Amino acid sequence: MAMKRIGVLTSGGDGPGMNAAIRSVVRYATSNKLEVMGIFRGYFGLINDELKLLNHRSVSNIINRGGTILKTSRCPEFLTVEGQKQAVETIRKNQIDGLALIGGDGTYRGAIELVKKWGVACIGIPGTIDNDLNGTDSTIGSDTAVNTALEAIDKIRDTATSMERIFVVEVMGRESGYIALQVALAGGAEEVVLPERKFDMPTMCHEIVDGNIRGKVSWIIIVAEGAAKGEDIARQITEMTDLETRVVVLGHVQRGGNPTARDRTLGTRLGAEAVRLLMAGETGKAVGVISDDINIVDFEFAVSKKKLETEAAYRLLKILT
Amino acid sequence: MAMKRIGVLTSGGDGPGMNAAIRSVVRYATSNKLEVMGIFRGYFGLINDELKLLNHRSVSNIINRGGTILKTSRCPEFLTVEGQKQAVETIRKNQIDGLALIGGDGTYRGAIELVKKWGVACIGIPGTIDNDLNGTDSTIGSDTAVNTALEAIDKIRDTATSMERIFVVEVMGRESGYIALQVALAGGAEEVVLPERKFDMPTMCHEIVDGNIRGKVSWIIIVAEGAAKGEDIARQITEMTDLETRVVVLGHVQRGGNPTARDRTLGTRLGAEAVRLLMAGETGKAVGVISDDINIVDFEFAVSKKKLETEAAYRLLKILT
Amino acid sequence: MAMKRIGVLTSGGDGPGMNAAIRSVVRYATSNKLEVMGIFRGYFGLINDELKLLNHRSVSNIINRGGTILKTSRCPEFLTVEGQKQAVETIRKNQIDGLALIGGDGTYRGAIELVKKWGVACIGIPGTIDNDLNGTDSTIGSDTAVNTALEAIDKIRDTATSMERIFVVEVMGRESGYIALQVALAGGAEEVVLPERKFDMPTMCHEIVDGNIRGKVSWIIIVAEGAAKGEDIARQITEMTDLETRVVVLGHVQRGGNPTARDRTLGTRLGAEAVRLLMAGETGKAVGVISDDINIVDFEFAVSKKKLETEAAYRLLKILT
Amino acid sequence: MAMKRIGVLTSGGDGPGMNAAIRSVVRYATSNKLEVMGIFRGYFGLINDELKLLNHRSVSNIINRGGTILKTSRCPEFLTVEGQKQAVETIRKNQIDGLALIGGDGTYRGAIELVKKWGVACIGIPGTIDNDLNGTDSTIGSDTAVNTALEAIDKIRDTATSMERIFVVEVMGRESGYIALQVALAGGAEEVVLPERKFDMPTMCHEIVDGNIRGKVSWIIIVAEGAAKGEDIARQITEMTDLETRVVVLGHVQRGGNPTARDRTLGTRLGAEAVRLLMAGETGKAVGVISDDINIVDFEFAVSKKKLETEAAYRLLKILT
Repeated sequence: MAMKRIGVLTSGGDGPGMNAAIRSVVRYATSNKLEVMGIFRGYFGLINDELKLLNHRSVSNIINRGGTILKTSRCPEFLTVEGQKQAVETIRKNQIDGLALIGGDGTYRGAIELVKKWGVACIGIPGTIDNDLNGTDSTIGSDTAVNTALEAIDKIRDTATSMERIFVVEVMGRESGYIALQVALAGGAEEVVLPERKFDMPTMCHEIVDGNIRGKVSWIIIVAEGAAKGEDIARQITEMTDLETRVVVLGHVQRGGNPTARDRTLGTRLGAEAVRLLMAGETGKAVGVISDDINIVDFEFAVSKKKLETEAAYRLLKILT
Repeated sequence: MAMKRIGVLTSGGDGPGMNAAIRSVVRYATSNKLEVMGIFRGYFGLINDELKLLNHRSVSNIINRGGTILKTSRCPEFLTVEGQKQAVETIRKNQIDGLALIGGDGTYRGAIELVKKWGVACIGIPGTIDNDLNGTDSTIGSDTAVNTALEAIDKIRDTATSMERIFVVEVMGRESGYIALQVALAGGAEEVVLPERKFDMPTMCHEIVDGNIRGKVSWIIIVAEGAAKGEDIARQITEMTDLETRVVVLGHVQRGGNPTARDRTLGTRLGAEAVRLLMAGETGKAVGVISDDINIVDFEFAVSKKKLETEAAYRLLKILT
Repeated sequence: MAMKRIGVLTSGGDGPGMNAAIRSVVRYATSNKLEVMGIFRGYFGLINDELKLLNHRSVSNIINRGGTILKTSRCPEFLTVEGQKQAVETIRKNQIDGLALIGGDGTYRGAIELVKKWGVACIGIPGTIDNDLNGTDSTIGSDTAVNTALEAIDKIRDTATSMERIFVVEVMGRESGYIALQVALAGGAEEVVLPERKFDMPTMCHEIVDGNIRGKVSWIIIVAEGAAKGEDIARQITEMTDLETRVVVLGHVQRGGNPTARDRTLGTRLGAEAVRLLMAGETGKAVGVISDDINIVDFEFAVSKKKLETEAAYRLLKILT
Repeated sequence: MAMKRIGVLTSGGDGPGMNAAIRSVVRYATSNKLEVMGIFRGYFGLINDELKLLNHRSVSNIINRGGTILKTSRCPEFLTVEGQKQAVETIRKNQIDGLALIGGDGTYRGAIELVKKWGVACIGIPGTIDNDLNGTDSTIGSDTAVNTALEAIDKIRDTATSMERIFVVEVMGRESGYIALQVALAGGAEEVVLPERKFDMPTMCHEIVDGNIRGKVSWIIIVAEGAAKGEDIARQITEMTDLETRVVVLGHVQRGGNPTARDRTLGTRLGAEAVRLLMAGETGKAVGVISDDINIVDFEFAVSKKKLETEAAYRLLKILT
């Protein structure tokens, strides 16, 4: 039986470009005579029946905006069978034939439950600044987050150079060093601390002291939040080298802002593709882009730990500084 | 015989990220005990012996800067045998064992001459905002150019919406609609005119008039400079629809600015890779990145016309507006 | 009799910060128990009865947005007695006791008519990127426009330096050289052509040729659109010096974009002040800020030609380049 | 006896626009046949004889750069008579006839010592992001710092709205709430905590809880670092309301970045004016701008506590949110 109405939601941490994906889902669907229900606050809205019919106009002038007009949340209740039951009840009641879900690892895991246990048709769209999903070169939001963090580091570099100081900059990334590694390389940072690789504090401190003797007095050290606390790294440096340090924790600034071109086109392409797959009767898949081509994988593969290659980039960084 | 000294130059139009590539060439080379001569103004400097020894310090604090510290030019003289002879003379005189050349189509064609006719070891690094070289997903500068144009279009959208006007925005791209297509999709433009596809003016004018009747009064139409003059498109619209139009030619603003993270990491990775290839005795090759992996191709393939896929993206754009 | 309901409109060219002013008018008024009618498309909406009641929520999340949510237009019809009659009819019909008008010279002149001929209570809020109104250090939108133009010039400088070229950059300002002078000084431009002062082309061309001989080969010349066409200046330079030139016309990009802090605080303070004056029974006045203090003047003074001091700044520019 | 050679230094925290001031000092002086010695690291360089002759070229392409090419430091040694003696020795030895000093309160206090105790001709240029010096509407760097903080808050707002959270954002300002108040007003923040006014935590928490009941769930609370720690405010809110909070400490990002037009023109005008005063035999003065006119005051007045008017702005903020 043909699909008549789909739902769309954003879940987990928000990221720039999610609105571009929502716009694309809504307009691609409506142009194909599907109705689209916007589900608010992710799985929470699914459980609590917070839905609204969206049309072409509902998504005007949002392609360039950060955040998500559907709002988002982390929803532990959905991990319970009771929560899922209520969610499925909402889906049935609203006659929703399939879901386009925009989010990261947690969102996809929730969708796996819906597909496997409850037979709901689900297609995932990778929306997370961490770029830690398999099956796609890039996730929606990660390009913007990297550029936002980089702009902050460029500014910090002005002061680091002018005041000749050691700066420790903590960037987002609980389990992935993706943002940290990108901005370290692009920002010309002297060092980067990643969850993916062992870090040798004494060696770095020796380098700092050696550099200091040769006249190199300003340092930028990038730390992924999942690897260490910026504050701890800074304190240890001061203890070992007796040099003053400054810490900046970039924090939630990295989640917001107008999306880059890349995050908007990615959201736009993947939103439409998700609807196309739902219309084709697909389920349990996540969409992505590999080398500019659409790529479709199972949810299970998408959430299997994506390995961030760090060695080549790290070595390059150390050679170039 | 082992390589002792290499040269590096930028040629053709400048683009953000070239400095990141220069920095990477210089530091990767010097850390491998190579000397690096910076050649100024591209092939012009090669002909006129405008060189300077560069060291680690010469490229400090440039990774985040637009333009190129080596300056650049278009040099018709290099197309003559006499010009090439002088260039080769400069190379010999300065005991340069190989060249890393950062530029686009014209730069690579010049390098082919040096390799084929004069036996000079040359490795190309793709630096052009047009993203029209084969063998790489992206060329250095194109990501920044797209984002710069996009930010301009976001601003124009403010006025287009507030004053309810039709705006024709001409973006760079003599032979490639790459920038135009990206910003049209990412900017939520209503229409795009590309060198790669036939454009139907009467159909667009009908859409404009139809939209106008339904209340859609603001339009953004992106035009690649290689497809048409923005001014001509605007005049034709006014003639056919009797509606007022405004034209903005973004022009050289698109070439400059601080490079995005992507252009910096691309420049950084490819600069080092080019030196590595020269050290390995390679020549006649261009470096690139495909789906995050280094990719090496012959110059001839790199300059063979890269086909920009426009149909899927164009259809998507029309569905979503 | 106490004021119960006011109207607010934006008229003439849009400028960043107008939305901050609208927000402030609406919220300051409603918190004082006044109703606020939003009038769409400036005087056009007044003539054609395009109004909508606005509340606290209507102006949420607009303080940081360029353009104007009330839309704007230039409305020649309002210059006729018939147009004004209809406008006044709309005002009476909707029981509007006073108007807050956001705009420039033309807007204020329209308001003078409403006050003098028709006895409508009107307070003006200076909203124009040209900063050409008397009685205020700055008009809403001008700070953003200057910074937008400056960022573009920074980017152009990258290419001007890298390719060693002469760039002529035309900026907005039909009757005022304000933007041109500010960006020339802040951008380190070599020359500026203003409507307010005679310009000597042969002298500049001599300087260019002299500079060229001494090795200064890149130039940025700023031209206010009201003084000359960038294209004409460029052509004349090429004719006189035989040197290549490039032209960039920044155009409507300068009107849009997220407002700067200054334009937002200015809009915020002046919007509230306008309502306060209306509530106090004032009319025929324009609000402004002088050295951080609120300043109130008659419309007639506000529209009397503001003299832009150019000599000191121009001399300084020439000394410093 | 006519002045032949002056010195220029930056001292204290760096700020965007200092380079524009340095450029202006150098070029204005050299165009008037004065020599200019750049003194590195502020008073530290004066004590340790770290000087370099600067010419027209030394300050090319710096007008648009954050930080200071002369570097800067805080120098406790200069507070001792011994330190001052050495500084004066350096001045005499290098035949420096007068100093242009760019910095804030501490820099000016140091200059007072040089003028009063040691008879050195000193003119101060207000360079600090805190905008806390008397005699000028604005200090160099403050406009950029406010806009940088504001852009960060715009980004945070995206997440605050999407995730419906309470964000506490700590901005710079040890003794002045200037930045905090400006960004709170311009950012549409719900609350601001300033060193200049008593803050009532229970009232705010009541407002938050009330708002929460009515459906207002996202808050931005700006805290000046001199008033409280963001972390403490956030913890207290959570304790009193039982609602989750997030903290962002913007930190040193606020010091850097390309200066705004206003900071560049301010630096440019004041740098030249300082040299003009030195040439006119003036000393012990600080330059500034009031309502676009140059304003000259004694150092003592400049460092007398500038009163930040907070009541009107704070009331306005609370009315509008």
